[in-house]
Amino acid sequence: MILGALEAGGTKMVCSVGNENGEVHETITLPTDAPEKTLRQIIEYFSAKGIQALGIAGFGPLDLDRRSKTYGYITTTPKAQWEYCALLPIFKNALGLPVGIDTDAGAAALAEFELGAGKDVRDLVYITVGNGIGGGVIANGQIVHGMVHPEYGHFIIKPHPLDPNPDGFCPYHISCLEGMAAGSTFEKRWGMSNAKLPEGHIGWEIEAYYLAQCCVAALLILSTQMIVLGGGVMNRDFLYDMARSETVELLNGYIANEKVVEHMDRIIVRPGLGNDSGVVGALILAAKELGV
Amino acid sequence: MILGALEAGGTKMVCSVGNENGEVHETITLPTDAPEKTLRQIIEYFSAKGIQALGIAGFGPLDLDRRSKTYGYITTTPKAQWEYCALLPIFKNALGLPVGIDTDAGAAALAEFELGAGKDVRDLVYITVGNGIGGGVIANGQIVHGMVHPEYGHFIIKPHPLDPNPDGFCPYHISCLEGMAAGSTFEKRWGMSNAKLPEGHIGWEIEAYYLAQCCVAALLILSTQMIVLGGGVMNRDFLYDMARSETVELLNGYIANEKVVEHMDRIIVRPGLGNDSGVVGALILAAKELGV
Repeated sequence: MILGALEAGGTKMVCSVGNENGEVHETITLPTDAPEKTLRQIIEYFSAKGIQALGIAGFGPLDLDRRSKTYGYITTTPKAQWEYCALLPIFKNALGLPVGIDTDAGAAALAEFELGAGKDVRDLVYITVGNGIGGGVIANGQIVHGMVHPEYGHFIIKPHPLDPNPDGFCPYHISCLEGMAAGSTFEKRWGMSNAKLPEGHIGWEIEAYYLAQCCVAALLILSTQMIVLGGGVMNRDFLYDMARSETVELLNGYIANEKVVEHMDRIIVRPGLGNDSGVVGALILAAKELGV
Repeated sequence: MILGALEAGGTKMVCSVGNENGEVHETITLPTDAPEKTLRQIIEYFSAKGIQALGIAGFGPLDLDRRSKTYGYITTTPKAQWEYCALLPIFKNALGLPVGIDTDAGAAALAEFELGAGKDVRDLVYITVGNGIGGGVIANGQIVHGMVHPEYGHFIIKPHPLDPNPDGFCPYHISCLEGMAAGSTFEKRWGMSNAKLPEGHIGWEIEAYYLAQCCVAALLILSTQMIVLGGGVMNRDFLYDMARSETVELLNGYIANEKVVEHMDRIIVRPGLGNDSGVVGALILAAKELGV
């Protein structure tokens, strides 16, 4: 099977060709420019590849309700040119192929669940901690969309007492997860990017406290079996152990499951697919449209 | 069909006989005393009723993993006498009948989903705001257990700036939902019960802020379609509108769905089954054990 995968991001478009096993054969990356130009380039690329279906892991918010007239559209994004872009119908019509779609984080959750770190669980949360924060949720082996789809990055968290910016930096919300803990907050808070802030800096303790609140919410609201933390901020590898310790401390023995107390390293984990969760998720979405 | 329902609480045991449509024919209430005595009384009651199966809506934490050797046991409850009580096997053996079990909040969520306020949705959260706070989650039409089962009352929330006890009163957690907003916090914080605190008191503004954080988490983490708020604290009816307004304010237009902005009264709702959600949920659990 030859499948196309589009990871549609706010700054770049990753186009790949691969198969239903999540194997990627080739990839190109295009900048996210005006929709007409960018979409035309993507269509040209996939037209020449003999793919049987396309999967899209898209930046949101998206309309994922198959009964809706605007199914597969981007909806109210702050990227004005892309607002109400008919993403899925445009590719469906231009390529004449089945097209599947989910959010970037939803697709990554699906990929980690089916082919990555979560192959042995039924319940998983994937959190991408990048310039923004997003999350995808699998419960009882199924992706959760609900009313729209999770916007995991925007629930409200408790500020750390040493945080100089306890309201955070989200234009919509005071003290939401993304506004407090996304990669883009480091420069604003510490005058230094997350890539540069030295290990041992108080900023990392604060970051771990926020990520732990995110993990505690997943463990208590969803009782999830696994939390996969991905995204650029998690490239600072020491952050995994910091987030785990802080999660254990915040839970304070509340969940009577030996895994929670003794094996948090099996619950809060790195992506099994490295940086490819999104692209592999898009391949799975393409395969699903073909009924595989 | 004649079914038994046991709502097993920390202070009382409600035993009912009813049917698979959630109709309750008769009910008795027993105090929750030493397990031997209380369980014997419950078994005596149900033995004489000709029931075909029993459903239990139990205080937790419970072991709900059907593959576990301690399936249907209460696990690490602070009620020492009941710790590791083999609730489900005891009834199964004594009555010689199929027995179903879930948490009290899980059963109530199931009841509201199948026969109550949520008959038309696929995703629902039921929150009981009583002496403690618990929650049950339905996603994609299925109850969510995950690793153990949701302990919705214990995720961390942001203290209100005017809260005189910003750490809350949970013995396990600093600033968790239950420790900040359960019925039992009113006496401790204001010297007055939630039944007596007058409308217009700042305590209600603070309570609404906390319940709104709980609703925001359900809307953003689960993207749930409906949040049913039940439990004794919600008997103060004005609290529904306060929680709704505060939720709209905290979301600040973030979810682009007209329902969220204009019809929060259809998202945050009263239980359709009044105070019977738990008992009706137990009847449904009994029916499910019979494959209905």
